[in-house]
Amino acid sequence: MARNVPLRGIIGYTITPFRLDGNVDLDLLRTLTGRMVASGVHAIAPLGSTGSLPYLNDEEREAVAETTVKAVAGRVPVMVGVSSLTTERTVHHARFAERVGADAVMIIPMSYWKLTEEEIFRHFDTVARATSLPIMAYNNPATGGLDMTPEFLARLLEIPNVTMVKESTGDIGRMHRLRQVAGEEVAFYNGSNPLALAAFAAGARGWCTAAAHLIPGLTLELYRAVVEKADLAAARRVFQKQLPLLQFIVKGGLPRTVAAGLELLGTEVGPLRAPLLPLPESEVEALRRILTTLEA
Amino acid sequence: MARNVPLRGIIGYTITPFRLDGNVDLDLLRTLTGRMVASGVHAIAPLGSTGSLPYLNDEEREAVAETTVKAVAGRVPVMVGVSSLTTERTVHHARFAERVGADAVMIIPMSYWKLTEEEIFRHFDTVARATSLPIMAYNNPATGGLDMTPEFLARLLEIPNVTMVKESTGDIGRMHRLRQVAGEEVAFYNGSNPLALAAFAAGARGWCTAAAHLIPGLTLELYRAVVEKADLAAARRVFQKQLPLLQFIVKGGLPRTVAAGLELLGTEVGPLRAPLLPLPESEVEALRRILTTLEA
Amino acid sequence: MARNVPLRGIIGYTITPFRLDGNVDLDLLRTLTGRMVASGVHAIAPLGSTGSLPYLNDEEREAVAETTVKAVAGRVPVMVGVSSLTTERTVHHARFAERVGADAVMIIPMSYWKLTEEEIFRHFDTVARATSLPIMAYNNPATGGLDMTPEFLARLLEIPNVTMVKESTGDIGRMHRLRQVAGEEVAFYNGSNPLALAAFAAGARGWCTAAAHLIPGLTLELYRAVVEKADLAAARRVFQKQLPLLQFIVKGGLPRTVAAGLELLGTEVGPLRAPLLPLPESEVEALRRILTTLEA
Amino acid sequence: MARNVPLRGIIGYTITPFRLDGNVDLDLLRTLTGRMVASGVHAIAPLGSTGSLPYLNDEEREAVAETTVKAVAGRVPVMVGVSSLTTERTVHHARFAERVGADAVMIIPMSYWKLTEEEIFRHFDTVARATSLPIMAYNNPATGGLDMTPEFLARLLEIPNVTMVKESTGDIGRMHRLRQVAGEEVAFYNGSNPLALAAFAAGARGWCTAAAHLIPGLTLELYRAVVEKADLAAARRVFQKQLPLLQFIVKGGLPRTVAAGLELLGTEVGPLRAPLLPLPESEVEALRRILTTLEA
Repeated sequence: MARNVPLRGIIGYTITPFRLDGNVDLDLLRTLTGRMVASGVHAIAPLGSTGSLPYLNDEEREAVAETTVKAVAGRVPVMVGVSSLTTERTVHHARFAERVGADAVMIIPMSYWKLTEEEIFRHFDTVARATSLPIMAYNNPATGGLDMTPEFLARLLEIPNVTMVKESTGDIGRMHRLRQVAGEEVAFYNGSNPLALAAFAAGARGWCTAAAHLIPGLTLELYRAVVEKADLAAARRVFQKQLPLLQFIVKGGLPRTVAAGLELLGTEVGPLRAPLLPLPESEVEALRRILTTLEA
Repeated sequence: MARNVPLRGIIGYTITPFRLDGNVDLDLLRTLTGRMVASGVHAIAPLGSTGSLPYLNDEEREAVAETTVKAVAGRVPVMVGVSSLTTERTVHHARFAERVGADAVMIIPMSYWKLTEEEIFRHFDTVARATSLPIMAYNNPATGGLDMTPEFLARLLEIPNVTMVKESTGDIGRMHRLRQVAGEEVAFYNGSNPLALAAFAAGARGWCTAAAHLIPGLTLELYRAVVEKADLAAARRVFQKQLPLLQFIVKGGLPRTVAAGLELLGTEVGPLRAPLLPLPESEVEALRRILTTLEA
Repeated sequence: MARNVPLRGIIGYTITPFRLDGNVDLDLLRTLTGRMVASGVHAIAPLGSTGSLPYLNDEEREAVAETTVKAVAGRVPVMVGVSSLTTERTVHHARFAERVGADAVMIIPMSYWKLTEEEIFRHFDTVARATSLPIMAYNNPATGGLDMTPEFLARLLEIPNVTMVKESTGDIGRMHRLRQVAGEEVAFYNGSNPLALAAFAAGARGWCTAAAHLIPGLTLELYRAVVEKADLAAARRVFQKQLPLLQFIVKGGLPRTVAAGLELLGTEVGPLRAPLLPLPESEVEALRRILTTLEA
Repeated sequence: MARNVPLRGIIGYTITPFRLDGNVDLDLLRTLTGRMVASGVHAIAPLGSTGSLPYLNDEEREAVAETTVKAVAGRVPVMVGVSSLTTERTVHHARFAERVGADAVMIIPMSYWKLTEEEIFRHFDTVARATSLPIMAYNNPATGGLDMTPEFLARLLEIPNVTMVKESTGDIGRMHRLRQVAGEEVAFYNGSNPLALAAFAAGARGWCTAAAHLIPGLTLELYRAVVEKADLAAARRVFQKQLPLLQFIVKGGLPRTVAAGLELLGTEVGPLRAPLLPLPESEVEALRRILTTLEA
């Protein structure tokens, strides 16, 4: 693997479970994380969108980061989400992640005010200077509110330890364009679940997915079919099989749907943090039907 | 004025000034607030988008709220922005605003995850139950990331102390539609600067604007021409005169452009909080030309 | 009125009625046109979007143009729509309109391929050189597929006989911007029905509307309230009253809804040309309720 | 190949060349078509977007259809574009295509007025009843102005001789969704050039492309690498190589850019029909650089 690019394959994003009193349930986080590692994923990523990162306070974020690194215990790489609205807090969490032993950090630039490219560049540059960990620049305008073009992402990759890009716009053209402007060796990852097959075909190094909580086997099977075996017919079959689930979790929002899915599979993960509400009952039923089909 | 609708006219939004060390400059906030009251605006609104609300920590927000209320000293109503990503923090700041003597609070629902209407409704309802202050529901998808339809805003207005709506989409049709679904007496306010004339023509009670920092006289003149004198020809003249400034501050982002404008007018307001950067020099020049024309 | 700007006020757009055999019903067109003139509108505009222009062949278009001019008989100005995908056909129809005595022509640039600004400019310039009639440049990306910015429209207005602009984007900011870039005396017209009040407040010379088929009195009342009497409260009342109808005809498509409305009011106007179908029955019912309310 | 699905592989779209007097150059059309067949493409498609279909009159369309079928002389299948704004004209051209010996027809529903799904369905159904040729339903909102969802396309495929779908939105998710709702055996084709690799990976039967005029060898090489050899690494290499050209012709518009490209390669194809203008000189230079790189 390239220097400072510690990730490939299925990168499992973990939810943040809560206790009934509303506090983060670190014990359950440990269990869920251990279970995901055991399922065979190639890396673990706490404190992403799936992990309800923006709804946690600083202490909670630190506890989740530290607990995850300890639970994984070096079996696979851990990439910690350290995004904050201010640069100062982002630096703080990047340093914390490094201190507790993470292998990489992920940063999505977040908007209230739309940031200029110069502002985003300085934001990444400032954090990069404050840590020696490799950084994944994460583009997801649907959640973060800011869109980074392939051309701009290529510019970010010139910052020494910004070494990876995660693309979640759902536009496969962005990935091909990124290869054009950043070179064929660029380490890019797919964050749009329904794009998983197309992204691997385009040369993505990995797939960042919360689906690893619910269907780790199928996500790994897709990876093997398309990347290891180059068997497109098999890849299409396993992809189309899991596509209804991928569409469902994207449409309903990852924390709501993954929490509901884990409960359907037997693990209570507690209430989401308000204003987030549990998945409505009718949608839980739809999810149950999808999961039942997949088990068949 | 209707019960529990304490605002009308020009509602001046204040920036949050910073000291060179990066901390909030409460002395200067006092000065700027006093100056804006003296200019004749009908209300003062700290901790809005203009006030860089999402970039401040809890202690800073409390200090700005308390300082503003004291500086205004009852001369005009004060509406404090209390938005947070979580419901719990929003409740906290609404209660704080009430405790220090604010006349109203403003809440924009904020996204990382897109909230469902049910989630947004519960969010407002929970805060409304926790305070006796009237609440302005603020719709601005361009910053908050969530869009509330006129139909949904009408539903929010059924919560007893949600009594006001601020519309910032820039679509005048939303205001007419709101009157259709919430009744002709609905108290709505315009938050899209380039829509100021059209919104008053549509029956808006007020105009929420950071332009009151730079051109308070012109904003008040528009209000008088269209609302008090019903002189549309005069209203168009004074509106078209200030339109280049209104377009400029919207396009460049309010904190950046208003800070630059205040400095051009002689008041240093300190660095913005990173990742926000000062307005680029070429744009400062453009702003200087606009302001010079307005003084002529 | 300015030189070469023959239109103001309520500009009534006529539908093209069909006989049961699918051919254009010129007798009924004569009747409908005469009725609209008698209702008091300030001008008549055949062969617009309302008139199903793009679905007629050349001979039909010529017959409609000639029939309309004769039916109006000089009582009010007639503006004929002459748009075609090719420049050559547009020139042909502009010349025909001039020959039969029209007072102005209207041109919407139409896309299959998105045209560059240079292509649109040449298109207008070529037609303008081929006729001495004043030309209204019509911007409606929702139907024509091409969007012309205020800046570009100002450039078109430099062509000697392009003297009027019709704006149908529904964005009131476009009209204020047009005044900024083309001068306060620019002759612009509103083509977005739900924007009628805001557009007159912004200084529009007229309102281009198919609603004149169904509620000519209310459209004229709005014009008088806002333009002649500057009575904004009265204007808002009469505007909000007709707004449900305006929203309905825009949402359902003008030919379908206006045809259904005329039939509800007692005049059969024949089948639309395929692929256009009649308004579905449930929507006809909704329209009936709206019209009933307006008559009350 | 499935019954009534006569197309697969590289489907070459031909431009319509013009003489200096503005008329269609049928001799040159014959030459260009023959050359494209000789290059090895699997099918020929005149009168598509590339062929400037909407800018031709009925007689010209008929001449192009007939000339193409004769020039191809049965060596590969010919699919003729027969789209028109009205259903009646579409039926006319579909029947003409059948009479002169085409193997299939392609129909894009075209908007001036946005059609309802019922209107589009009836349009296709009426044409389908009037011809025995298989029909390709073509979805390209960027040109036709109407968007058909995968769910609706699946409904169209229930009409007996609507047997193929061409997707040109550029959203790979549409293709996976189409397989979900219409079954794994659905015959779908890609019309978005920069999506060529992803579409084949998703199971597209063919790639509809005007690039076959300029780089037939590279388009065929991509097809062989991904479909015949399942060699994704080789497919990525040949795709990334031609991607700059694919992006260029999409961005600049197919008739303009392909005409310019053919002239750079030595064949004058005459003026485009107004309002279309030739590619600006600076862009011709950019195209020359791209083509030079590809030849190297």
